[in-house]
Amino acid sequence: MLRSLVRSVVRASAPGSRSCSGVAAVSADKLVLTEVDDKTGYATVTLNRPPVNSLNLDLLKAISETLDDLQNNKSRGMILTSSSKSVFSAGLDIMEMYKQKPERMKEFWSTLQDVWFKLYGSPFATVAVINGHSPAGGCLLSMCCEYRVMLPKFTIGLNETQLGIVAPTWFMATMRNTISRRDAELALTLGTLFSTDEALNVGMIDEIVQSKEEGIARATAFLDRFKKISPQARSMTKQALRSKDIMELEDNRSQDIDLFIYAVTQPKVQKGLELYLEALKKKAAK
Amino acid sequence: MLRSLVRSVVRASAPGSRSCSGVAAVSADKLVLTEVDDKTGYATVTLNRPPVNSLNLDLLKAISETLDDLQNNKSRGMILTSSSKSVFSAGLDIMEMYKQKPERMKEFWSTLQDVWFKLYGSPFATVAVINGHSPAGGCLLSMCCEYRVMLPKFTIGLNETQLGIVAPTWFMATMRNTISRRDAELALTLGTLFSTDEALNVGMIDEIVQSKEEGIARATAFLDRFKKISPQARSMTKQALRSKDIMELEDNRSQDIDLFIYAVTQPKVQKGLELYLEALKKKAAK
Amino acid sequence: MLRSLVRSVVRASAPGSRSCSGVAAVSADKLVLTEVDDKTGYATVTLNRPPVNSLNLDLLKAISETLDDLQNNKSRGMILTSSSKSVFSAGLDIMEMYKQKPERMKEFWSTLQDVWFKLYGSPFATVAVINGHSPAGGCLLSMCCEYRVMLPKFTIGLNETQLGIVAPTWFMATMRNTISRRDAELALTLGTLFSTDEALNVGMIDEIVQSKEEGIARATAFLDRFKKISPQARSMTKQALRSKDIMELEDNRSQDIDLFIYAVTQPKVQKGLELYLEALKKKAAK
Repeated sequence: MLRSLVRSVVRASAPGSRSCSGVAAVSADKLVLTEVDDKTGYATVTLNRPPVNSLNLDLLKAISETLDDLQNNKSRGMILTSSSKSVFSAGLDIMEMYKQKPERMKEFWSTLQDVWFKLYGSPFATVAVINGHSPAGGCLLSMCCEYRVMLPKFTIGLNETQLGIVAPTWFMATMRNTISRRDAELALTLGTLFSTDEALNVGMIDEIVQSKEEGIARATAFLDRFKKISPQARSMTKQALRSKDIMELEDNRSQDIDLFIYAVTQPKVQKGLELYLEALKKKAAK
Repeated sequence: MLRSLVRSVVRASAPGSRSCSGVAAVSADKLVLTEVDDKTGYATVTLNRPPVNSLNLDLLKAISETLDDLQNNKSRGMILTSSSKSVFSAGLDIMEMYKQKPERMKEFWSTLQDVWFKLYGSPFATVAVINGHSPAGGCLLSMCCEYRVMLPKFTIGLNETQLGIVAPTWFMATMRNTISRRDAELALTLGTLFSTDEALNVGMIDEIVQSKEEGIARATAFLDRFKKISPQARSMTKQALRSKDIMELEDNRSQDIDLFIYAVTQPKVQKGLELYLEALKKKAAK
Repeated sequence: MLRSLVRSVVRASAPGSRSCSGVAAVSADKLVLTEVDDKTGYATVTLNRPPVNSLNLDLLKAISETLDDLQNNKSRGMILTSSSKSVFSAGLDIMEMYKQKPERMKEFWSTLQDVWFKLYGSPFATVAVINGHSPAGGCLLSMCCEYRVMLPKFTIGLNETQLGIVAPTWFMATMRNTISRRDAELALTLGTLFSTDEALNVGMIDEIVQSKEEGIARATAFLDRFKKISPQARSMTKQALRSKDIMELEDNRSQDIDLFIYAVTQPKVQKGLELYLEALKKKAAK
């Protein structure tokens, strides 16, 4: 599993990989595909930056705009999934951090913050159908949703320490909103990537499904539970419960950006990213 | 179950229902009955506003005074239960919100806050014997207690979103003191009314009992566990653990009252209450 | 079990007990023994103030210095255990509170705070091998660690209310970092001493081991899980997760000391300590 993830990541991280030829026709143009079900009104939002949905600035912008659209259209529910058969999202795109201009890094991180504010605090209900590996930033997106179903034999977790980095405090807060404090401490210090079964046991996901189709069906069933509930009462309740986490980042947005740029531009970290990219290339070449 | 709850609620909400004739002799006079066990010294406090213990201003005042009495008499323990065979408490009385004068609403909400301060932060130990349905405000009173036993085939939960309203943040905090953050988010957004079995599984209650008598016995057994413990050490420990929740409302009492009155007096909400009352009357008439 | 604990405590609390003759040769000189494994680099830190590792000022100072040494030497991991076969640590030494000079009490409490800051917030990974009873302050030390393994037939818990006192808020915060809020409230108000099996069920410990040797082996296995993880990323993650608890005491250090001295010097509390010591002596004499 991990080996295939690594291979996919290196292809995604290679400059210019976005125009690779293996992309299905339907997904060639847009980084995020949005389909609204006529019957239910629920939007299925598909991350579509082959091969592994690495979160670069363009993809984050596309997600951010999609979330704006859904909010403006008073969506009743969103299902987040991936066009890949093996990766939900591989997390943040290393190319946004390696030898990158500070101005771009600033925009990149600020856009990631925007996505988090809009997804973690969305007025509409959200479900993740995790149909592939979901490390780091991929796990963050899943945990921002209110319900998670996952296919077997994949992995999920905030594995930042395994990569030699520290998850931002708002990543940590999002995990603590999902699993217990005790389990979050173990998972965050160890950088645990949970298997699908382990994720269910620890409460990181809510259901295991056997296919993407079953996942969409279960996600729809979850969203249907809100059918008779006032959307306004629902969203105010959700936002009240998550407000302390949200306010904490709101109060520290610029410091959080500064901290990210400071950490990433350390020569030691840049060297680490370089070695990591080289290792990925060698592995992929095998 | 729910149908019988609905029928009971409409009778309780109908103006003048308090003087209905079906009330047992023993409970005709007082909205709250307090009996102190000679042997144990524990007070059994019985909510007694037939038919469903809707929390109106009078009942809340009676509860508040009862809690004062217990505190002044240095009670070692309180068991909270209901004189009804099917409803612990149906929650806040809608008549206190529908076409009500602002001054009265202000007193009503302030008294509810008082009850919460006195019960959630009581120096004496508290147990709820939930011998009937316990939605919304009824659930709040139960969760303020330190231990909960419940009879089978009833429901309990903060179902505010199901009624189109938002539970105040201190209701939410009380639930988070009882069950996990994750379960609280699901329960509060969905407005879940848990069955007795579900309530045990999620940790909303501590034990299932088969009768009110067994409930009183189990509550007594819980209170007995504090027999050899210094009451002062016990109460200071409890209050320290709950102090952040308590201080948060203390710091926001008047804003919380303003918010309640603002929300309730919205024409849309008033219309909703009207429709709800009409629906209850129609159902009860069937 | 408890009787043997009580007997041990009285011996420890008796003035001059530190020079008792039953101490093994290896442990005669130092209150804390530190052994670093050549292969792994992990330090095994053994509390060694027979008979029950009562935490007096000298022992706390020795622990504090040991933690400084480990930090200065950039330790990769610490295993905390006891030289006693029946007691991990009996908690705070009553002789530091009974008829003690305020200046000494101030230094005592301040040193306990230091130990907590250094252990709860340590950059290196920490495991407790709980090879004996672990009440009150002993439980606190265990819970400061990141992983706990425990031998059968012992007890662990913050049993302060059973002794008529109130655990400081940072003891409470440490417990809430370990087990659920609900379980912590019950355990702290009841002053519960969990058996080894109960401790596993409630999440107070992570594994049961059959011997100290197996405990050291399991602790080593836990520390090994961090082998490939950047020590800096690991420690920053841990400290970020625990920072709110740490900052809360940092902001209130002197008030916390004042509160301790105020509480302990109450005539009622001094009388209680006197009676407690007398009772221990009588029991031990039987």
